[in-house]
Amino acid sequence: MHLQEVLCHFSFSIIIFMTQLKNDRFLKALLKQPVDRTPIWMMRQAGRYLPEYRASRKDAGSFMDLCTNPDFACEVTLQPLDRYPDLDAAILFSDILTIPDAMDLGLYFETGEGPKFKKVVRTAADVDALPVVNTADRLSYVTDAVSTIRRELNGRVPLIGFSGSPWTLATYMVEGGSTKDFRHVKGMMYSQPEVMHQMLDKLARSVIDYLNAQIKAGAQAVQIFDTWGGVLSHAAYQEFSLKYMQQIVDGLIRENEGRKVPVILFTKGAGQWLESMADTGCDALGIDWTTDIGNARRRVGDQVALQGNMDPSVLYGTPARIREEVASILESYGPGAGQVFNLGHGIHQFVDPEHAKAFIEAVAELSPQYHK
Amino acid sequence: MHLQEVLCHFSFSIIIFMTQLKNDRFLKALLKQPVDRTPIWMMRQAGRYLPEYRASRKDAGSFMDLCTNPDFACEVTLQPLDRYPDLDAAILFSDILTIPDAMDLGLYFETGEGPKFKKVVRTAADVDALPVVNTADRLSYVTDAVSTIRRELNGRVPLIGFSGSPWTLATYMVEGGSTKDFRHVKGMMYSQPEVMHQMLDKLARSVIDYLNAQIKAGAQAVQIFDTWGGVLSHAAYQEFSLKYMQQIVDGLIRENEGRKVPVILFTKGAGQWLESMADTGCDALGIDWTTDIGNARRRVGDQVALQGNMDPSVLYGTPARIREEVASILESYGPGAGQVFNLGHGIHQFVDPEHAKAFIEAVAELSPQYHK
Repeated sequence: MHLQEVLCHFSFSIIIFMTQLKNDRFLKALLKQPVDRTPIWMMRQAGRYLPEYRASRKDAGSFMDLCTNPDFACEVTLQPLDRYPDLDAAILFSDILTIPDAMDLGLYFETGEGPKFKKVVRTAADVDALPVVNTADRLSYVTDAVSTIRRELNGRVPLIGFSGSPWTLATYMVEGGSTKDFRHVKGMMYSQPEVMHQMLDKLARSVIDYLNAQIKAGAQAVQIFDTWGGVLSHAAYQEFSLKYMQQIVDGLIRENEGRKVPVILFTKGAGQWLESMADTGCDALGIDWTTDIGNARRRVGDQVALQGNMDPSVLYGTPARIREEVASILESYGPGAGQVFNLGHGIHQFVDPEHAKAFIEAVAELSPQYHK
Repeated sequence: MHLQEVLCHFSFSIIIFMTQLKNDRFLKALLKQPVDRTPIWMMRQAGRYLPEYRASRKDAGSFMDLCTNPDFACEVTLQPLDRYPDLDAAILFSDILTIPDAMDLGLYFETGEGPKFKKVVRTAADVDALPVVNTADRLSYVTDAVSTIRRELNGRVPLIGFSGSPWTLATYMVEGGSTKDFRHVKGMMYSQPEVMHQMLDKLARSVIDYLNAQIKAGAQAVQIFDTWGGVLSHAAYQEFSLKYMQQIVDGLIRENEGRKVPVILFTKGAGQWLESMADTGCDALGIDWTTDIGNARRRVGDQVALQGNMDPSVLYGTPARIREEVASILESYGPGAGQVFNLGHGIHQFVDPEHAKAFIEAVAELSPQYHK
């Protein structure tokens, strides 16, 4: 590193340290510390339901052009915060498939069909050929985006970094895109379990490097998205998904800038497995709407905070119905710390932004009574 | 009814009564009565993975031509029993969408895209216009198939009748086909709950008539397939899916031909809600692979039998791996009555029929030790 670079890094770190976090409700709730009201953010809060996002996307070009340009990524990350001042966290705008893309599998997007890969990974030789991804070498556009967003946030709210889970990444890499039946990836898992384990280990090591790089660049909490862990059997989930999330939790930087960096695990459809997820030593679990949050709290609330869990489809209801659902989830969790309000999955593209506003405002207005 | 018809019905009933059921392992297990080994059948056992099915399908024409012709429906229903002599039940070959089709919504199938409807149901007026289906008027091809199959089975194994659940049928009727995000049907549920309830009530009344007609025609057990109940929140599941399955259970003929007619409820993805499902008064629950069957037994095994629950994708593994999974599920359930072995969902079309054989034989060979 040249002297100039060193100085630049040094002064940049100073700036980060010097910027007081004005709203730390989200970080406190993840650590089960008292807050004045339940913090809220929405998965996929920077997304197609927002007209300003669609405009930026048009300017940027493709979806990946948006992800790989730190200025555009920063712009769209901040959009929901500007529109909804009650949001308590920003989340890095990026895709979960950056790591497989950096493994040279050739990520691309076809309109209406979701992500696809030019190369699929199905044999022992394919897995042998996969590199462990070094973020500094291959994914600096992500850490650059983190630094840029962090600077532009200027302490407004904390910034969440994230990654896909090894199992979830593997499903796309083996299938070559989205899938309904998980035929090839489960076929590999059941017929060549050692090959699958080798692949998941390479992914876990890549994710550790990736999330630690995000933390060093300024991410103040990280979430692991295990979108497809819930399609596994209870036993296969432990062996092929949770085991590698455990490896990641064990390998993460847990404190930075004098603060704990909370880790959130989110497996969609994992309501039956919360206990084993909590045992990984993560700080919080994301839960979906199939689990009653009060029941989840009784099961694992002593160990972890809970984030969730309104069905995103409730946002198709009237503002009054949305408010009623928010009230019911707050009531189910009950008084005291340890809850972060969110949807149980990403917000849908067809939702009216005014309904998202009703949702966020309902949480801000109805939750203080649970924190007296 | 003309005298000749009366005589024909009378003598036909006599034939049914006179035919001794040679293998009642399945019916006994559903009632938690002792058996010599764990009975087994497979959801979608008559299906595209079998070359003989593909040949029949070609002869019949379209998929609906196959369903609506009692002789063809009978032919394919019996195919898996001929190939796999250890199977302990036959299931009527039909589609879950016969009721919406009989409501004149215009069911059709596009290759590779699944079922579609020409008309969708999205408004109060659309729901008002829906009839309650009378099976004798509109779906006699189904009851004719049941009678034909029952005659051809000649007491070999019992015959299962079935229907889709009201909620599951509603998803297709509102969306106009398959869906990934359940946008319209959940939108209707959250924005016009009364309209949705009216629709579900009409469906429940249609299903009661439909299943009772199947029972009168000779179905010896019935299963309600709630394929999409698991996409609901815990509260919405109770209100919009389970409530209507309860209505059906309450309205069914529970005894026929001097035998109890067991009712099986199967909601995919309902591992967290087994207790409330068991409380409906059904005889058995179908469970998917995300639930550990031993755990399910500890929770509801005093009330109901359990049917399941191997991940159909295990059939992509080697015969040895399949056998290992069967052993592990048998071990998890443990000794004693009340288990019916099955997959946790329908068998996939790409499965090698030899692997299905290995699966069925493993259950037949490994289960007797649990029934001593």
